Amino acid sequence: MAMSTSRAASRRTILSAAAGLAAHVWVPRPAKGYTTADVASRLVQAPSGVGLSKWDLDTPALCVDLDRLEQNIATMQAAARRFGIATRPHAKTHRSADIARMQLAAGAIGLCCAKLSEAEALAAQGIDRLCMTTGNLSPTKIRRAMQLRKTSPTFIQAVDNERNARDLSDAAKEAGVTADVVLDVAVGTRSGVPPGEAALRLATLVDGLPGLTLRGLLSYDGGAQHIVGFETRKARTLANIEANAATCAAMKKAGLNTEIFSGGGTGTYNMQHLVPGFTDMQVGSYVFMDMQYLAIGRQDGHPVFDDFASSLTVVATVVNNRFPGRLTTDAGAKALTLNVPRAGVIGEPGADYSASSDEFGVITFKEGPAKTYAMGDRLELIVPHCDPVVNLYDVIYGIRKDRVERVIPVTARGKSQ
Amino acid sequence: MAMSTSRAASRRTILSAAAGLAAHVWVPRPAKGYTTADVASRLVQAPSGVGLSKWDLDTPALCVDLDRLEQNIATMQAAARRFGIATRPHAKTHRSADIARMQLAAGAIGLCCAKLSEAEALAAQGIDRLCMTTGNLSPTKIRRAMQLRKTSPTFIQAVDNERNARDLSDAAKEAGVTADVVLDVAVGTRSGVPPGEAALRLATLVDGLPGLTLRGLLSYDGGAQHIVGFETRKARTLANIEANAATCAAMKKAGLNTEIFSGGGTGTYNMQHLVPGFTDMQVGSYVFMDMQYLAIGRQDGHPVFDDFASSLTVVATVVNNRFPGRLTTDAGAKALTLNVPRAGVIGEPGADYSASSDEFGVITFKEGPAKTYAMGDRLELIVPHCDPVVNLYDVIYGIRKDRVERVIPVTARGKSQ
Repeated sequence: MAMSTSRAASRRTILSAAAGLAAHVWVPRPAKGYTTADVASRLVQAPSGVGLSKWDLDTPALCVDLDRLEQNIATMQAAARRFGIATRPHAKTHRSADIARMQLAAGAIGLCCAKLSEAEALAAQGIDRLCMTTGNLSPTKIRRAMQLRKTSPTFIQAVDNERNARDLSDAAKEAGVTADVVLDVAVGTRSGVPPGEAALRLATLVDGLPGLTLRGLLSYDGGAQHIVGFETRKARTLANIEANAATCAAMKKAGLNTEIFSGGGTGTYNMQHLVPGFTDMQVGSYVFMDMQYLAIGRQDGHPVFDDFASSLTVVATVVNNRFPGRLTTDAGAKALTLNVPRAGVIGEPGADYSASSDEFGVITFKEGPAKTYAMGDRLELIVPHCDPVVNLYDVIYGIRKDRVERVIPVTARGKSQ
Repeated sequence: MAMSTSRAASRRTILSAAAGLAAHVWVPRPAKGYTTADVASRLVQAPSGVGLSKWDLDTPALCVDLDRLEQNIATMQAAARRFGIATRPHAKTHRSADIARMQLAAGAIGLCCAKLSEAEALAAQGIDRLCMTTGNLSPTKIRRAMQLRKTSPTFIQAVDNERNARDLSDAAKEAGVTADVVLDVAVGTRSGVPPGEAALRLATLVDGLPGLTLRGLLSYDGGAQHIVGFETRKARTLANIEANAATCAAMKKAGLNTEIFSGGGTGTYNMQHLVPGFTDMQVGSYVFMDMQYLAIGRQDGHPVFDDFASSLTVVATVVNNRFPGRLTTDAGAKALTLNVPRAGVIGEPGADYSASSDEFGVITFKEGPAKTYAMGDRLELIVPHCDPVVNLYDVIYGIRKDRVERVIPVTARGKSQ
């Protein structure tokens, strides 16, 4: 993460950019503290949307601003259209069938999943066109993947080694299915088959194996997404993927299917179309944004990457205000993770938020506080990194103009297998 | 966390100390990858305990070695007896009704909870004698706490400010219950009422309020638990709590109830009895241990704190071995958190484990590897910090001699409200 130098400089700017979220602030005292069950029963009574205030939720409460979420999905879809490529958003970010449906409705050609149990959970909620971006290695996982292929015939899975390709072929035959397969071709050294010779050999093998249909290749550059500064990010992204683009071209030349050449993420969404043969983007975080992505910088050089609006927040409660220069909240590492940059306190650009206690957050102030906080008061936090934070919660409260409109289950919460 | 200087030095020593875990290693190739449902149905078929191998579990799999867990509980209980105080183990560590029951059966006088939803979840599974170590501030939480007091008459809750004490009193009257209350008296500046005058005033108020019964005080020193080096840890612990001990004495002198004077944790379990008036220890991590606690050092000066055995591990799968000097696994931040010291790879003291990707772990080697790893091979990891890791999983597999004996639900997983 190369963001440490610019972090301090842009925290104020980032929080100013996100301030729109606080425009409708109406904080009841005392905040009531409604649970998910309370909210659900109220929504049944008043489905018209005149819901509870988000400030009255039991805390820590994970919230998404629906106007911003919808706008983010529309903005990304419009950008992809303009760039002449498609989106295949990564569900590892939200793990939610409801948000997956919104993305598909907006024009996404499918969704990515990181883990098989995640794909199974989403498929069980009726989400199809799922593409697993990692391989299934164990016999049980392979059998389950073939079962999923049976019930969800648009399911695609990744492969990155010969042994696994042969295992998939055997399992497909045994299950009586033809399995759609994409090559995971490495960008960097984390996952996948290296581009070039090895990838081409594997693609040829997969193409020839019974029970498998080669659909193309994946090339996700996880390391490039958070590079600070658009020009550096662009140069590195395009350099990193060059060998993969050459592999795609070689596959095509060899008569192998390259109808899918997928990768990229929120940080590189506006450069992936420059990669020859590229078909679709595995964008994830754009739906929510977070402190990490806000800090990577915009195409025009502005330090805040606000092409998408920060929509995901945690509402927390002040549980102690007795000690000078600090506040304690009820949102610690179990509510926010330990990712950096740390959570941003909306309306308090001079605040530093430490979630290093499991159960408590501790706020200290470089400047401010902007107001006086009583015990029981609510605060709203921009999360450090959206994916692992969402994974800590069973539900996301869908908020419109500070009112709870819906409860969004985190369908695949904890599905990391 | 003041452990950075000694961390590198003791990783090898720590992993050697934990090596006993790997004594029964039998790694099938390929590992089958059984899911929780598979395991549950097998256990029904063969409840005698001749279970599946832990190496055959679908991964990442959270496992606890039952021999070690039982031994840890017995060791702590014996130590407390020797020291002449009691244990009131903190359930925030395991969030499990099954492990709570083991602790109570061994002689714990009750259990602590950090959050109301955690207490409710455990009480719903029949766990009583729960003591909430943080206050309930919102009207809904207060009402729920009184409800819990009704159904679980041994429930105790903390209070640290006058307004909240009055709110609790009103709610108790309204609910028709008498609520048992302990003062949370601050050690440091994170939570609680400051010791001395303010605490005494609050204790007197609580004692006089209708609907409330004052039971004593809590004084948890979170900051002391991980101080490296026994003598430093002891000196700081005893100095930090001096004002609280004086407060306890003053309460007693004023005729206020101090039958509970509770605090301490795994790192200070062998010094809390030196605090005048102290009654019981809120030990948590001792059941599992983790890389953080292993590194704090033993009473005799040995760098590894192994009074309790490391029992909690994550079994992970190697998903890539293609790139020189590194391995990729399927256990990233969503399976292990970002706490430091990082996960320890059992049998590979020269390995550094990075979980900084959400979905992947990356192992690099300063020395070794001790063996050659194929894709699909299993590895076993000691977790960085047990509490937040457990909170990521729905179940812990209870393992005896490498076989799955039982499935332990994480009863209050995600209950951070």
